This record gives sequence, structure tokens and C-alpha cells, in this order.
Amino acid sequence: MNILDQLKFDSQGLIAAIAQDENSGAVLMMAWMNKESLRVTIETRRATYWSRSRKKLWAKGEESGNIQEVRSVYVDCDGDAVLLKVHQVGGAACHTGHRSCFYREVVDAGKGFKESGEILFNPDNVYRK
Amino acid sequence: MNILDQLKFDSQGLIAAIAQDENSGAVLMMAWMNKESLRVTIETRRATYWSRSRKKLWAKGEESGNIQEVRSVYVDCDGDAVLLKVHQVGGAACHTGHRSCFYREVVDAGKGFKESGEILFNPDNVYRK
Repeated sequence: MNILDQLKFDSQGLIAAIAQDENSGAVLMMAWMNKESLRVTIETRRATYWSRSRKKLWAKGEESGNIQEVRSVYVDCDGDAVLLKVHQVGGAACHTGHRSCFYREVVDAGKGFKESGEILFNPDNVYRK
Repeated sequence: MNILDQLKFDSQGLIAAIAQDENSGAVLMMAWMNKESLRVTIETRRATYWSRSRKKLWAKGEESGNIQEVRSVYVDCDGDAVLLKVHQVGGAACHTGHRSCFYREVVDAGKGFKESGEILFNPDNVYRK
């Protein structure tokens, strides 16, 4: 038995993956995994997603160094989402430098955003142009 | 301007929605929203999803009474996921009675699950047959 065979990947072979900071409980990001990326994540204990835009495995932090060390993996009741509890190296999960990708709060009854949360790095210093 | 027009709904008109307990920080569930369900959620401050199986709006708790009172809504950096911080009435988000739908931890290098977390109600007493 392997849990990978019990999950419900969608028509594109993907499942939603949520990364949560193991200490603060902050939801850091949501990305996608195919079966292979989840297998690699479980095996290596480093979060590896599927990049829908680049159509390839995406080892989180491969460019920025901000890898996610996976402490535990949970599967939801209907098997179509996984939750990773991680140690976020560098503190910031988002490519904008924010700690969490969910840094825009919906305000004013849906008419606007309010940005919040720490910015931990300058993307210009981290990513190649 | 309305933030609904800035989000990236997928080819089926859906976006991933994560519900997090505002106090404990526990990730309670992941479900789907279409534009209308997100609009209703923002307007009513009660989590309303899109049921892919029933193909209709699904006001969380409409049957069980375990509604989610939405305290805040966040959008991620690339606009394809939302995070709801909620007060979970009744304490349990999962139809199994578990506090969180993510109650199965992947163990033994992916060969099995270990169930964890509190069970707060007996589904037989809550849902119609």
C-alpha cells in the first residue's frame, strides 16, 4: 500500500498542497503537486511542487535558497489536498519577500486590498533577472 | 474595482479556498469557490463554497449547523487561492466529526496513515441519511 495511490489527483494529475509554518501556524502558500512531486517531497523531506507555468518539478527554494524542510504531511478527508507542516528556511515563502503569499487582505467589502505582514527580503537580491 | 475581477479562476471557474481557525491557527479544510460563492462569502461573512459533486453553492454548515463565521479573507500573491480566517461554530469543520479535515498524517515513508486530532461529533447524529 502506498498513500499516493489513494489520493484523488485531478484531470491534470494535480492535487492542492498547502504549506504551513510548523511553529507560528501561518499558512505560507498554496501550490500544486503531481504524484511524483509528492513522492519526492515525502522521500526527501523537502517541499517539491509542480510548476504549472514551467511544467516541471519545482523544488521550492532551488533558486532563492528558501527551501521548506517538511516536518509532517497530512491528507484531507476526501484525499484531494495535502497539508505540509514545514520549517521555512529564510522565513519567507513568497517570491515577493513576504513571509506568507497570503499578504493581501480583502477589505472594503471586496473593493480593495490591504497589504500586511513582514517583508523579509528584496526579490531583486534573490532572483536572477 | 472589485477584487473578484483580479483573481485567477481556473478553467472551471474555481479557486482554491483554505479555511483556518482564527484562534488556534489550525488549517481546517480546503474546498473550492467560484466567483459567486466568494462574493457571497465576503458579503455575508459566512463561508460559502462551490460543491463540485453537487454542482451548487454550498453554505458550509447548512446541514450540520457547523457554520464558519469569516473574520478575514486573504488572497495569495498570484491570485489563485484565498485564505479564510474563521470562527468554526461547533469546533469541527470535517464531516467525519474531526476538528480538521487534515486528520490523517502520512507515516512510514508514505506507506500508511496515522489518524490524529479530536473527534467532536458523531456524523450519524448530525447528517441526514
